[in-house]
Amino acid sequence: MIDFSLSSELADLRDRTAAFVRDGVIPHEREVDAHGELPAETLAALRAQAREAGLYAPHVQKEWGGLGLDMRAISIVFEEAGYSLLGPLALNCSAPDEGNMHLLELVATEAQKEKYLRPLVAGTIRSCFSMTEPPPGAGADASMLRTRAERRGDRWVINGDKWYITGADGAAFTICMALTGDPKSAGQSGGRARHATMFLVDAGTPGYRVVRRIPSLDSGAPGGHCAVEFRDCEVGDEAVLGAVGEGFAYAQLRLAPARLTHCMRWLGAARRALDVAADYANTRESFGQPLGRHQMAQAMLADSAIEIQAARLLIWHAAWMLDTGADARHETSMAKVFVAETVNRVIDRALQLTGSHGVSDELPLAALYRNARPFRIYDGPSEVHRIVIARNVLKAAAIASAERHVHSAEGGEA
Amino acid sequence: MIDFSLSSELADLRDRTAAFVRDGVIPHEREVDAHGELPAETLAALRAQAREAGLYAPHVQKEWGGLGLDMRAISIVFEEAGYSLLGPLALNCSAPDEGNMHLLELVATEAQKEKYLRPLVAGTIRSCFSMTEPPPGAGADASMLRTRAERRGDRWVINGDKWYITGADGAAFTICMALTGDPKSAGQSGGRARHATMFLVDAGTPGYRVVRRIPSLDSGAPGGHCAVEFRDCEVGDEAVLGAVGEGFAYAQLRLAPARLTHCMRWLGAARRALDVAADYANTRESFGQPLGRHQMAQAMLADSAIEIQAARLLIWHAAWMLDTGADARHETSMAKVFVAETVNRVIDRALQLTGSHGVSDELPLAALYRNARPFRIYDGPSEVHRIVIARNVLKAAAIASAERHVHSAEGGEA
Amino acid sequence: MIDFSLSSELADLRDRTAAFVRDGVIPHEREVDAHGELPAETLAALRAQAREAGLYAPHVQKEWGGLGLDMRAISIVFEEAGYSLLGPLALNCSAPDEGNMHLLELVATEAQKEKYLRPLVAGTIRSCFSMTEPPPGAGADASMLRTRAERRGDRWVINGDKWYITGADGAAFTICMALTGDPKSAGQSGGRARHATMFLVDAGTPGYRVVRRIPSLDSGAPGGHCAVEFRDCEVGDEAVLGAVGEGFAYAQLRLAPARLTHCMRWLGAARRALDVAADYANTRESFGQPLGRHQMAQAMLADSAIEIQAARLLIWHAAWMLDTGADARHETSMAKVFVAETVNRVIDRALQLTGSHGVSDELPLAALYRNARPFRIYDGPSEVHRIVIARNVLKAAAIASAERHVHSAEGGEA
Amino acid sequence: MIDFSLSSELADLRDRTAAFVRDGVIPHEREVDAHGELPAETLAALRAQAREAGLYAPHVQKEWGGLGLDMRAISIVFEEAGYSLLGPLALNCSAPDEGNMHLLELVATEAQKEKYLRPLVAGTIRSCFSMTEPPPGAGADASMLRTRAERRGDRWVINGDKWYITGADGAAFTICMALTGDPKSAGQSGGRARHATMFLVDAGTPGYRVVRRIPSLDSGAPGGHCAVEFRDCEVGDEAVLGAVGEGFAYAQLRLAPARLTHCMRWLGAARRALDVAADYANTRESFGQPLGRHQMAQAMLADSAIEIQAARLLIWHAAWMLDTGADARHETSMAKVFVAETVNRVIDRALQLTGSHGVSDELPLAALYRNARPFRIYDGPSEVHRIVIARNVLKAAAIASAERHVHSAEGGEA
Repeated sequence: MIDFSLSSELADLRDRTAAFVRDGVIPHEREVDAHGELPAETLAALRAQAREAGLYAPHVQKEWGGLGLDMRAISIVFEEAGYSLLGPLALNCSAPDEGNMHLLELVATEAQKEKYLRPLVAGTIRSCFSMTEPPPGAGADASMLRTRAERRGDRWVINGDKWYITGADGAAFTICMALTGDPKSAGQSGGRARHATMFLVDAGTPGYRVVRRIPSLDSGAPGGHCAVEFRDCEVGDEAVLGAVGEGFAYAQLRLAPARLTHCMRWLGAARRALDVAADYANTRESFGQPLGRHQMAQAMLADSAIEIQAARLLIWHAAWMLDTGADARHETSMAKVFVAETVNRVIDRALQLTGSHGVSDELPLAALYRNARPFRIYDGPSEVHRIVIARNVLKAAAIASAERHVHSAEGGEA
Repeated sequence: MIDFSLSSELADLRDRTAAFVRDGVIPHEREVDAHGELPAETLAALRAQAREAGLYAPHVQKEWGGLGLDMRAISIVFEEAGYSLLGPLALNCSAPDEGNMHLLELVATEAQKEKYLRPLVAGTIRSCFSMTEPPPGAGADASMLRTRAERRGDRWVINGDKWYITGADGAAFTICMALTGDPKSAGQSGGRARHATMFLVDAGTPGYRVVRRIPSLDSGAPGGHCAVEFRDCEVGDEAVLGAVGEGFAYAQLRLAPARLTHCMRWLGAARRALDVAADYANTRESFGQPLGRHQMAQAMLADSAIEIQAARLLIWHAAWMLDTGADARHETSMAKVFVAETVNRVIDRALQLTGSHGVSDELPLAALYRNARPFRIYDGPSEVHRIVIARNVLKAAAIASAERHVHSAEGGEA
Repeated sequence: MIDFSLSSELADLRDRTAAFVRDGVIPHEREVDAHGELPAETLAALRAQAREAGLYAPHVQKEWGGLGLDMRAISIVFEEAGYSLLGPLALNCSAPDEGNMHLLELVATEAQKEKYLRPLVAGTIRSCFSMTEPPPGAGADASMLRTRAERRGDRWVINGDKWYITGADGAAFTICMALTGDPKSAGQSGGRARHATMFLVDAGTPGYRVVRRIPSLDSGAPGGHCAVEFRDCEVGDEAVLGAVGEGFAYAQLRLAPARLTHCMRWLGAARRALDVAADYANTRESFGQPLGRHQMAQAMLADSAIEIQAARLLIWHAAWMLDTGADARHETSMAKVFVAETVNRVIDRALQLTGSHGVSDELPLAALYRNARPFRIYDGPSEVHRIVIARNVLKAAAIASAERHVHSAEGGEA
Repeated sequence: MIDFSLSSELADLRDRTAAFVRDGVIPHEREVDAHGELPAETLAALRAQAREAGLYAPHVQKEWGGLGLDMRAISIVFEEAGYSLLGPLALNCSAPDEGNMHLLELVATEAQKEKYLRPLVAGTIRSCFSMTEPPPGAGADASMLRTRAERRGDRWVINGDKWYITGADGAAFTICMALTGDPKSAGQSGGRARHATMFLVDAGTPGYRVVRRIPSLDSGAPGGHCAVEFRDCEVGDEAVLGAVGEGFAYAQLRLAPARLTHCMRWLGAARRALDVAADYANTRESFGQPLGRHQMAQAMLADSAIEIQAARLLIWHAAWMLDTGADARHETSMAKVFVAETVNRVIDRALQLTGSHGVSDELPLAALYRNARPFRIYDGPSEVHRIVIARNVLKAAAIASAERHVHSAEGGEA
């Protein structure tokens, strides 16, 4: 039955995560460099503290060193982690590693898990996910994939360019998505049918190269957003992640929760922005009274509070669906659009409320403003999700209409 | 733990309510007159069917003839009822009677329940709620109440004008809100402290008069929206509803769930609008393809689907809070703003999608458009709720800030 | 050079029109019936007063009894006329007659002008324009036209259904748009190439019938919105308006200014709504101060003022282009979208500000709310205009890009 | 009479400015450093080219080396200049120097003009404007000014902190706004009546110090946004700009056009964003067709085109008012709100359309996104302008209402 209560264990975990972020992580925010990265030793220290506090890697199964939470519990904890842009790094649950860990848990061989998953969870290495390509390759439309892995003897030879690969600089390995189908059919439309495979490619493999960091509006995760190339990059069968030809299916497998975990973290960031704005409104005077007494400020605060609450509930609902094993693509798409747009609106309002302080480095809002903007684009731009959602709506309406007709036909016979 | 599942009983009740509205109620929509009212015999027949089907008065306790549902279950059922503007009438759960039944259940004496609640649930009488006044009286700001009941011997004499009293024409009784405090303090500000009482006033009581029906954008419920006057209207102590002086508290008691039940019914109406639009988009061609293949149509459908889902979850969450006995005023305010604005947007988009068909009487959208608009105004205009929500946000921020300071002071001592 | 001044004559005409509407027309607003129509004698009296005051038929050339204004002057005067929904009727410049007069002036024969234009300007008859069809005919996509006029001997025989024909009930004649091309090519796509003709069809012509008035969200102009049918409706060559085969071109000729004159009138209605809201905000108290001192009210008033000003300037600019003889389709499309959406937002805000008074008949806002909504749909829905505007933007960008390439190529040679 | 034509000279100047920005300035955009600054020699070279091309300092009177344009002509030229963020720098018409030049032209003594205005126009020095203060000083509410200049003998001693002073680092002088009234009245409210004076303070004056550059969301102009302090900073009477006590009046004198020139430059930036998005939409494929064929992209392009056009017309209208010498504060406030919000929406849509390319440094959009955001805050946040606009609306409504009453009273007597 509909219930929004948390178990006392989960409420406790939430509170401890919140306290850790507030007292342990936020004080280090000023130490990030121009790329948004913490000094390595600081990060290591934070992770050690998180591990000790029993907060580390909440999304990873216990056998691999995590907390083994389900998606609903992850929703609670990731929101708290996201309250600081550094929180997910400290808990080792930030993108793209978090999604890669999830995928490895699901489809990697034991050997691959030992080689890649274990150190990733431990935090001794980083990873990246090589999917997006420069035009005319795969972007919002994944079916436009052009990177190709060809069978040569018992080896695979990968060729192609990747673009905006988050975390690539310094990553120990990448998961590379490449076409492996019959090249003769590759020119045809109908991306679904196209045959792609994921490969685990170690840094240092000849032919695999991080070309450059792409300067971006957001400071990016550790390792930046990079242009990456594969030039006759040769790997063996042990590099195949899961089954040959299942690349697109795995991408969905990775994305369904990854899309939602992004929402969870960013929801925490939105709450941070609202709190910063509310603190400012409580203390700063303007036109003879505290800013928070001005109705235009109140309207902004209220809208942000409402939208954050709605965003949270959309996340929880989709998480619950994933926990029940249901197909939650419709629900994660709805959550993605709403949360991404809410987060941007909430941060924008907080900036507006805090004025020149908001756009300066005195408050964390300018950084949030820059970093949150791409979230309306990655993991599927809002527009693509809207198309998917609308198609579901139309299909459901068509089915209901058909049923009504059957029903009235039967009624007519009676 | 967070859970969105429904019990099989509730899922069944939902489906049966949906089927009743679809097959039993909607076919009668064309019979409503210019005031939005059904012929009395049609309404009686529908209620008899609803009673037989075990769907009648879902919000009323079983001992009084209802289904005895909690707020979460009511959320589910009222949404289905609201799928037709006539659904709540057929189930006898429409405003203002529904809120009045609730209030009577909570605070009426047994004698009052027998006299007013029993026939109200039975559907043999209607009622109204006399709160709003013409300027400069009580409107969005309830503290501006001017109607006054004065003690004369062992009687109360009520004087004042009421305005926009829904359902007054033909109502068997009204609940009248009147000041009963010391008139000397009445001129002071500080509405909270002001002393008001609710009175049960029977139609026909000398001095109580329905002046006129006020033509309105919405067709209104049975009985219209009326101007009502009390002129030396005398009632005895048996007319006092609950305790003297508790009027404002009871108004909150009535409104907290009533605000939410309005949301539930209107959510059903929004879903109807979306379904109508989706059906139209599936079948109508434009510029060489079905309307639903056009992305601008898809964007409208998707936004409506997302917002309806978010609206539903806000309702469920507030309903759960009410079921747990928590103070849910913050949550019902958030739901009210979001749902009311969502409902209007969804209907507006459906109108836009269906073009001249939408604005004509070929589809139910024009009626929905007119009838839904006032919902952003009654039960507290969006603006007033936003002020309340913002104050809660600011207060919470001030408390959190104080706790952080205490915390760091303690940390400093350690 | 850029100039926004008005000649003293035009400023005087504007002021006199405004005074006539305020003092002469608005006092009669309460006399309209449920269909939004004035008693015939009242309308006749108003028109007589308008004629006497030199305000009548501002858009018609002087030789036909109008003021002979250019589009910029019409912009000024129609905005004032539109301040009351009855103003354009009183000045005989309301749709659809106004657009029909314009078209007749441009393409009718002298005989047709004497028969149709003269009494139309005089106000002794009304007319309508039969273009829109029920699905799957011409709607937002005019190329889907299905009504057909076939040559039979020296006569034309018209067959087809029309829908939502404003003013049809009681109109002395209609202008009917019908396909006249080779039926063999009619099934092909490519509406532009399709061959249509306009016919002047008198009421009473056998086979031409007003089927019914379609109830609509708006009260409609005199004559309602009607379903109309042509069944073997025979007319002669003297019924052809302009040249055979030029129907689509004439539709553009009619619409380009008609679209803009609609904007002008509705802009006046938006200004009325803002004024009503401002008056209310000045006089009604809420929460201890005049409503207009509340910032949320101020935000609504300010947004409406800004958008009205922007809307006015878009109209003026497009009107200036039409006056210079330039192709202003891009500009009228931009004005149409912006004005229609502005008008609806402004009225919606005024309703919200005035609360229950706004939705009642105490203020003109509820009527404006209902009547303005279809304006986002007729004369091309916002969506269709956006497509047209975007194509223009894309085409201009493509041309500029090509020029840059030519330029750099030339630069390279230098 | 309403006219939107440009003289052939102005059209030519517009085209030459556009060509200069496109061919001369934009190719240097990649040379800006992390602070958004060009190498000094590049800037000097660009200015020399601009001077040679007769495009330099369009806003400055001819006697001081500018083009001597009126505000309408400036509107045309500044929009073209703003097409690149570097354009205004190249033409020496960027903030804050442009506003300072304007103020010096209006109120400086001849000696001050020689010392400050001449080299400023020549581009050999830069300047800044010290108005905003850290809390609890002057921000959106200028009346909260706290910096004070006290008379000591025949000298003035300035004390106070300034904040977010654009261009301060490296500026040859600043214009400092300080209270000069009786300190006893300083604690009173009623900012208007408070007595402030502007001082010209040279860099290097003891007690005047640029404390630090404040990192900001925008890269800022040359010289950054700085914290600045005045500590017993002593200047003589020759440092007084204009008359003692006229500081607030001069601030308005500076801001009225400065607010509008900001709008003009940013309008050019918005047009750039739209053009970049349109080029991208023309060339990039997605889901089987060019992005520009997708209606969701078209909707974004169309909205941007419409709003840019409306923004331009609001600017032109306010500029025309300033040219006629009228009080244009209402109109510049309306333009400021609409343009600032339009610019941000247009850039946001362009980013969304261009996806990962937009947020990367491959396109100028990410820089525009960061740099445009503060424009909704400086020169008066949108909220403060809305309050001002609403008050004007309310006042006009009150006057019109009074006139109607007078009018009907007179009518009654007749």
